[in-house]
Amino acid sequence: VFRLIPREEGFFDLFEQAARNSHEGALALADLFNDFNNIDAKAARIEDIEHAGDKITHDTITKLNKTFITPFDREDIHRLIGRLDDIIDLMDTGVSRMMLYKISKPTDDARGLAKVLVDSTAILVELLPLLRNEKNMPDILKMCIAVNTLENEGDRIQKHALASLFESGFDAANMIKWKDIYEILESATDRCEDVANIVESIAIKNA
Amino acid sequence: VFRLIPREEGFFDLFEQAARNSHEGALALADLFNDFNNIDAKAARIEDIEHAGDKITHDTITKLNKTFITPFDREDIHRLIGRLDDIIDLMDTGVSRMMLYKISKPTDDARGLAKVLVDSTAILVELLPLLRNEKNMPDILKMCIAVNTLENEGDRIQKHALASLFESGFDAANMIKWKDIYEILESATDRCEDVANIVESIAIKNA
Amino acid sequence: VFRLIPREEGFFDLFEQAARNSHEGALALADLFNDFNNIDAKAARIEDIEHAGDKITHDTITKLNKTFITPFDREDIHRLIGRLDDIIDLMDTGVSRMMLYKISKPTDDARGLAKVLVDSTAILVELLPLLRNEKNMPDILKMCIAVNTLENEGDRIQKHALASLFESGFDAANMIKWKDIYEILESATDRCEDVANIVESIAIKNA
Repeated sequence: VFRLIPREEGFFDLFEQAARNSHEGALALADLFNDFNNIDAKAARIEDIEHAGDKITHDTITKLNKTFITPFDREDIHRLIGRLDDIIDLMDTGVSRMMLYKISKPTDDARGLAKVLVDSTAILVELLPLLRNEKNMPDILKMCIAVNTLENEGDRIQKHALASLFESGFDAANMIKWKDIYEILESATDRCEDVANIVESIAIKNA
Repeated sequence: VFRLIPREEGFFDLFEQAARNSHEGALALADLFNDFNNIDAKAARIEDIEHAGDKITHDTITKLNKTFITPFDREDIHRLIGRLDDIIDLMDTGVSRMMLYKISKPTDDARGLAKVLVDSTAILVELLPLLRNEKNMPDILKMCIAVNTLENEGDRIQKHALASLFESGFDAANMIKWKDIYEILESATDRCEDVANIVESIAIKNA
Repeated sequence: VFRLIPREEGFFDLFEQAARNSHEGALALADLFNDFNNIDAKAARIEDIEHAGDKITHDTITKLNKTFITPFDREDIHRLIGRLDDIIDLMDTGVSRMMLYKISKPTDDARGLAKVLVDSTAILVELLPLLRNEKNMPDILKMCIAVNTLENEGDRIQKHALASLFESGFDAANMIKWKDIYEILESATDRCEDVANIVESIAIKNA
């Protein structure tokens, strides 16, 4: 019955843009961490991607506020675009902290977290378009499990990173700086999991 | 009038399970802190309780997504199960940090926070069943005040703990580690208060 | 058509009280930072303002739970009063940390953040009354942009503060203490931006 009412389909385009934007950010982050040169230019590029994310989020909220019939619950749309935006925000914050802390080079664990973010956001790029059709349920569930598995991997890397930090003989300033950076990057992997959970919820509700 | 519509009562069972699970976690945490032996086995037990909490939360969200008439607002159900799950998650994270930081023994303040968590979750175990009947309003309000009082006590302990930390002559690594652990445990007491506030809100709305 | 139904207008009074209360807190914070004398009395005054904020929030939630027709979405009312309350809570937490950390004097960056909070909350005091009338849209948008600009300024000050912290030759304890205080104060500026964004959302939805 709901199918008879014309719905605002533009939301799907915006969610998919946000997912692609977060993946672009993760690739730029991994590039910075794997080749720590031209860091000013690379950090500026990540900041640009973060600004693009802000615009997508703002457009989504504006559309939400002006749309009477939405393809699914307003609160779900709000939460979904919010968590998608958090991913790129947190990656940008992590890089910004590396710059202002004058970190001389990334650690293996930081590179590991960047890889988890590349892989998680790659799945989100494939996952979001599946929301357009309720037939996609089995694939949605499979992808959500994959994102959850990656989040566990991110958690494992963070634990390893924190343990190493205090066994490394780092000075206090470097312990404080790296603990901050690891926590920010690990939060970004949590937000990828949040996005997957929200997508799963929406799909089940509309199945 | 709403009473004429058959409602999905299974949500109450799940909330009560989640409350009992968080209390079981708090008891295991207090046992670990009061008798710091067999710590690997005790930490593994807390992790198991945390996994049980994840399952209860997942079952609740799945039921929510499949249920047309819910006993109260969908957003309240979402928030309530989320905050209940946060309690055990944070206790597990606190213990996991103690392990990876190779903490040699808990402090009095850590034991104090564990006691606040035991007491708060004991009240939640009694509080959640009262949601089943709108006649329970006076008892609900009394218990919510008791949880708020305990959260203030948790706050007081955390302040004492942070002040002592910097007067203790601890080295920088131990300051960083303990500040992290205290903040995580104190957040768990905040989540107990959140649960009480949500229960109060639901009860007032449905009175 | 909705205008024909008598709506509960008391919510506007409560939002405006909460905005004025957060501004009063910001002025007290700036006074403490600019003239670091009688600090016990000044901190106690900020704690009183925080308690007043708790009462406004509690009254709003109680009214929300008892009101059938609300002037706008229940979730928006919940979010708006929650974020307004966070502003004064975070300012009080920041001051409380300064006291228990026995900070000998505020930094220029801390004073800068206090000024941003004074300016942001001053705009919120003017912004909230505009929600009463849908004709005010252009002014609402202008003020929201001004709050966003101030949040960027807060972000810039925090970055400067964190960078200086690690170049200052501070000892580890002072790095940890000040990082904590800066993060808490900067979060308060984020919550001002959240309030502006929620007001903008409500205004667009009801335009």
